[in-house]
This record gives sequence, structure tokens and C-alpha cells, in this order.
Amino acid sequence: MKDAPIGVFDSGVGGLTVVKEIMEQLPGEAMIYFGDTARVPYGNKSEETVVRYSAQIIRFLLAEGAKTIVIACNTASAVALERVKKEFDVPVIGVVKPGAKAAAEVTRNGKIGVIGTETTIRSGIYHTFLQKTDPNVTVYGKACPLFVPLVEEGWLGEDAITEQVARRYLAELSEQEIDTLVLGCTHYPLLRSVIQKVMGEKVRLVNPAVETARELKYLLEEHHLLSERGSGAGNAKEISRPEHTFFVSDGAEKFRQLAASILPAATLRGEDIRVKTFE
Amino acid sequence: MKDAPIGVFDSGVGGLTVVKEIMEQLPGEAMIYFGDTARVPYGNKSEETVVRYSAQIIRFLLAEGAKTIVIACNTASAVALERVKKEFDVPVIGVVKPGAKAAAEVTRNGKIGVIGTETTIRSGIYHTFLQKTDPNVTVYGKACPLFVPLVEEGWLGEDAITEQVARRYLAELSEQEIDTLVLGCTHYPLLRSVIQKVMGEKVRLVNPAVETARELKYLLEEHHLLSERGSGAGNAKEISRPEHTFFVSDGAEKFRQLAASILPAATLRGEDIRVKTFE
Repeated sequence: MKDAPIGVFDSGVGGLTVVKEIMEQLPGEAMIYFGDTARVPYGNKSEETVVRYSAQIIRFLLAEGAKTIVIACNTASAVALERVKKEFDVPVIGVVKPGAKAAAEVTRNGKIGVIGTETTIRSGIYHTFLQKTDPNVTVYGKACPLFVPLVEEGWLGEDAITEQVARRYLAELSEQEIDTLVLGCTHYPLLRSVIQKVMGEKVRLVNPAVETARELKYLLEEHHLLSERGSGAGNAKEISRPEHTFFVSDGAEKFRQLAASILPAATLRGEDIRVKTFE
Repeated sequence: MKDAPIGVFDSGVGGLTVVKEIMEQLPGEAMIYFGDTARVPYGNKSEETVVRYSAQIIRFLLAEGAKTIVIACNTASAVALERVKKEFDVPVIGVVKPGAKAAAEVTRNGKIGVIGTETTIRSGIYHTFLQKTDPNVTVYGKACPLFVPLVEEGWLGEDAITEQVARRYLAELSEQEIDTLVLGCTHYPLLRSVIQKVMGEKVRLVNPAVETARELKYLLEEHHLLSERGSGAGNAKEISRPEHTFFVSDGAEKFRQLAASILPAATLRGEDIRVKTFE
């Protein structure tokens, strides 16, 4: 059971930013990833629909032998985590709680901004977790629905249009003088440089993926589920390279291309990506 | 059978631009609409997935009593029409062929641009139909993946960012000196004013919805399926108002709000929209 894979899922390719962090922090762990590319995006869909899709995917990952589940999608973490936790016996972790915890630790003036999809922001979940961690923080949420399509269009880096979109979305957060901004969608770290430019160097950007990988390690330890291939704590040479498996519900080749911009080169080839559909 | 409804479907709300045209040109016809809001958008998904979704929806519309099917989505028309035509016994019509026909009739210099989703443009279907209608036309296709999210964000009219995105996408079509541009996605008529501004007044914009409603009338006549409530040809007073039914796979209230910007006021209320899911 310890050497079973960690099941990770997202609405599409964005969750690979979480996979990348887990690879770095827990190099001995094998992963089985599912990207729901046939139904992407989740961020403009209802809670009920996102919960239904999440439960389907978790059932699939468990049938494939996953020992634990990481919901590497902010929208699904926001609306589905508590409900699926009750339904399944294995440990399930999302990205929202670790992201909120990291932000509460980083802020100095207690003013925290959160950007994400419509469904994530409407859920108010970051607000809830942030205030649970520290009742004195003030939280400003802002949905940025065009950020995901801009990333998927590849208009990154110094792009003039992307920068203007960012200025429009982020203006009210700047006015509130936040000192910490949670990148509450797995695509947003790919826009980090333009977001940092617009917000200014003094604002700390929090990527929940980093903290999620750290929390995952504690969770595996607690449940005695850390792989015996090594967790990165020992001698790196002793770690045998784990095998990862990737599933998508549509468009394996397109997924591979986008994945190449997130994961280390040669992590996956087209033929390693399998297609699984639910309907 | 003649008074049975016309089944119309789209990946979401955009197909209501086609519904609106049918209401105007065939005021005696009842419609049953399905918007696949739980899986929207179709434009970045594979042909196989779009065909599967289309067949599911057509089966549902037929079970609900539809006498004929209108695929009011360019992407689904582009990749699924020919395949579903073979599978089902009722007449099925898409928006691409009527749109191509209209463009071939309108052009004077034989240079036609087509804008649409990635999947529509990659399919080359407008190119095929345009050259079948007139082998001498030259066709320039351009995918504009950000247009749908911009419409859904409501950044319409004189919006500075939308105009810059349009300038970037349309620059190469302007350089080719096209005189006709097909709005090959049902959302795009909502960006008509900015597209016209960017392309200049001399370029004719073709909205396939208008020609599709016209073709639908011929198709119903040919199959003796025109409603006896009247087709708009007779005295308007003699037409009894047909009942329309609306289904979505997610988010009825959001659908109603977006629908209000497309359909005449009071066409539908929230409680008239029913939810049907496939998985």
C-alpha cells in the first residue's frame, strides 16, 4: 500500500503545477494523474456539477489503486472537498486549506487578496479558511475568468493584452493595499511575472501548490503511507525513480504539449497519456 | 407531427442567437432548446468528444418529441453533422453550410475570412463548403479562442481590451484584403460592432444564424413538417403563440441571465429552464 500511487486530479492541465511540486518535495512517490479535459473548465460551473465530476474521478483513481487523493484544482477543492471526504475512506487533501494557511503566515498587514475562478470566489472558501487561521485578517476576493483562457492561448510573459487584463482585474485589490495575494487557481502561477509587475514587488504572491505538497507529506506520514522508495529525506541516490501515469478525458496530444511547459522535459511522452471518459 | 417542436442545441447559451432568428422567421414553430452548460465550451475539445456529446443530446431531444434537429453550434456542426445525420432518421441541419452559402453569395472579390473556435477552424469545414459552392473563392481561417470568454465576461461594445484582442486576431485577415467575414461561432454576433470597427465598414459580416433559419424553413417544407400554426407567411394574427422549452445541463439561473441579453424580454423565466444531465 505504501508504494501505491498518489491520485491527483484537476479539470485539465493546470494541476500539473501541483504534480511538479510533489515530484520535487516527494521524489519517491508515484502519481496517477487525471485531467478532465473533456469537461474543462470547472470554474464557471455549479457546485453540484463540480461535486459530481470530482466523485466520479476519485472513484476511478481509487479503482486504479491510489492510496490517497490530491484535489489539485482550486474550484473542486473549494466546493467538493468536504463532501467527498465523507464519501471515501482514503485521505483526501485539497489545495485551498494549505494555500490559506501559507497566506495567513506570510501577511504582515493582515490584508490578503485571493484571485480565482468565479466558482471558487463565489464559494468564499479562502475567506472561511483564512479567518479560521487568523480572525483578524481581512480578505478581498476577485474572480478573474479571462486568466485561464489567456494562459491556454499562450499570451504569457510580457504580453500587453494580458497585462491590461491583469490591471483591470487587480485594480481594486491594489486599492485595498493588500500585502499578500493567493494565486487561487492552478493556471495562475504561469502568469506570476505579469501579476507581480501589476501588484508591485512588495506584494507577496502565494502559490498553494507549494504548501499542498508539504501538507501532503505530513498526511502520508500520519497515515503511515509514505513510500519506502524514499521521501527525499534520505540519500537521493537511494531513491528509485517512480513511475507516473497520466489520464485525460480528451485530447491526449494537446495535453502533452501543454504539459511540456509545466513539467520537466521528458517526464511524459504522448504515448504515456491514456484516455478515460465517463459518459 | 407537424406541430411537434424543433430541437435546437448548442454547447451553451450562444445557440440562442439561432433560436432568435427562427422565432423571427418561423413564428409558428415551437422549439425545444438544449444548452450543454455543464460541458461548455466545445471549441477546444476533440472531434470524437464533440460527436459523442452531440449524439447524446440529439437522442434526448428526439425522446422529448423533436420533429427535426438544428445544430446551433458551429463546432458541433463542423465536426458532428455528417456523422449524426447517418445515425438519426429525422432531418438534421447545421449552421456551417448555410453560413458558407451566404458568404459565397455576398463576396465580390472572392476573398473570404472565417473566424471560429479552434476545433471549427482546424476542421477546415467552412473552407470545404465555400469551395464547393464556388471553387474560385480563397478562404482564410482564424481561430479566436478568447472571443467566447470575452463575451461571457460581458466586455462588449466599446471595450478597449476586447478591441485590442480583435485587432490582434484579425490583423492577418485585414492584410489579406478579405471583403467578407463569416462569424463562425454563435457568440460572435455579440461582438459584431467591435469586429466591424476593426475590419472597416467595407467588409461584410455574415451571421450564419440568419441563413440557417431560412434553410430550416425549406427543409421543413420539403419534409411536410411546417407547423400548421402558421409559418409567418400568412396573417400574423392567425398565428397562435407556440410554447418553447429550455433545458440546460448546469446553471439554470446563470443561463436565464445570459439569455435575457439575446432573446426578447419575457421569452423565458428562471422557472421555465429545466436541468438534464447525462452523467
